[in-house]
Amino acid sequence: MNTETVVTAAMLAIGDELLSGRTKDKNIGHLADMLQLSGIDLKEVRIVADDEDAIVDALNALRGKYDYVFTSGGIGPTHDDITADAVAKAFGVPCDYDAAAMTLLGDMYQRREMEFTEARKRMARMPRGAAHIANPVSTAPGFVIGNVYVMAGVPQVFQAMVDNVLPTLRTGQRVLSLAIACPYAEGDIGMLLAAIQKAHPDTSIGSYPRYVGQKFSTEIVVRGRLQQAVDAAGAEVHAMIEDIRKTREIDENRSAEA
Amino acid sequence: MNTETVVTAAMLAIGDELLSGRTKDKNIGHLADMLQLSGIDLKEVRIVADDEDAIVDALNALRGKYDYVFTSGGIGPTHDDITADAVAKAFGVPCDYDAAAMTLLGDMYQRREMEFTEARKRMARMPRGAAHIANPVSTAPGFVIGNVYVMAGVPQVFQAMVDNVLPTLRTGQRVLSLAIACPYAEGDIGMLLAAIQKAHPDTSIGSYPRYVGQKFSTEIVVRGRLQQAVDAAGAEVHAMIEDIRKTREIDENRSAEA
Repeated sequence: MNTETVVTAAMLAIGDELLSGRTKDKNIGHLADMLQLSGIDLKEVRIVADDEDAIVDALNALRGKYDYVFTSGGIGPTHDDITADAVAKAFGVPCDYDAAAMTLLGDMYQRREMEFTEARKRMARMPRGAAHIANPVSTAPGFVIGNVYVMAGVPQVFQAMVDNVLPTLRTGQRVLSLAIACPYAEGDIGMLLAAIQKAHPDTSIGSYPRYVGQKFSTEIVVRGRLQQAVDAAGAEVHAMIEDIRKTREIDENRSAEA
Repeated sequence: MNTETVVTAAMLAIGDELLSGRTKDKNIGHLADMLQLSGIDLKEVRIVADDEDAIVDALNALRGKYDYVFTSGGIGPTHDDITADAVAKAFGVPCDYDAAAMTLLGDMYQRREMEFTEARKRMARMPRGAAHIANPVSTAPGFVIGNVYVMAGVPQVFQAMVDNVLPTLRTGQRVLSLAIACPYAEGDIGMLLAAIQKAHPDTSIGSYPRYVGQKFSTEIVVRGRLQQAVDAAGAEVHAMIEDIRKTREIDENRSAEA
């Protein structure tokens, strides 16, 4: 596989509520889907608390290792929203009230006849040098600094920000995916499938057990960047399933005769 | 807060399918709920691919940092199930066919008149010195080595294994949680809430925006290990809400008179 076609990413989801069970995260799965469609490989996800050291450490580990890092959460108006400060600290720059964000928010609250409180002004703070990520849902912008994209935790806002960010990213060759329903259990096909995987190193073959109506079956997913490679491995998987079917048919006929 | 009452944990969810978006994880939220109920603090979660180096690195980082590490995924019969090998490598021990697990699985397949294939035998492999985690759903055991608990990725099996593991763990004092519905927006209460947080360092006060029927409101969650501390902070939050209500009533009356 040509490694030049690979663009990698990590996600850092931030928030006590994700670790206490109060909130069941919806952003990881969404980002995974969107990156997959875009040809960016999500390699790692971390969830940390609203804790400055934890955020800084995770961010510095991830931003040095992957092409892009996407964060969710902690950019609201309250005291537990500390993501902007933590990101600034990770980059070693001050966290300022951004003039353009102040104007954006000030105008919005004036239009809505709401007070632009000190708390709301907190949402205009970002690391010096950061650029906005537009928020069409509730105005308060996310921001990008270096290779780190800082977005809201509220799923509607996170999703809108991801939509705004994706077209600006360098993308790799998209991973193609072929799902094959296999009527046999993982334990029946495991060694055959391992041999197919070994013969097709340009693909990554995943197998996922299903248990429906008291019967085990398997979903086999062949993934790869080259259509030809995915098709070739897929054809072998289909042939394997057909071989097992025939063998079992013969066995059943023999049993019936016996 | 008495730090001796705190027991910490991390989770490592393993699987390409979680990062490609194919599978939306359900185990993180479940474990978060169960640990919260048990008085164990989930401090960090990581999701990595079916990649030996990634699993080993994450595991070694987490098991040195937290009291317990719980993993999900990668202990099935197919070639992409490499968790047992990776855990053995992280601990620097061989990964063997466990005799008791071989008997358990062999008996089960015999009863079900299914072949105990080489693939199925893979599920009996575990790091030398590991102890079983019983699997009442589909027999193949998880295992524990050191402070690392290795469990299945299939949610029914993961949950059953968690149920078996929890009673064996050292637990801390449970975190108590008080949720207060606040009819005002985060931006209206942010500074007042920050002051309450500052005055109650034994608690952790989270605020979560809601947007229903075109109106912003907030759910405030006070968490802490001491009932008295949680109650005291909660009382201040209630008083804050009441103060805002009265102030707004006066303002509205003044507007009506003007």
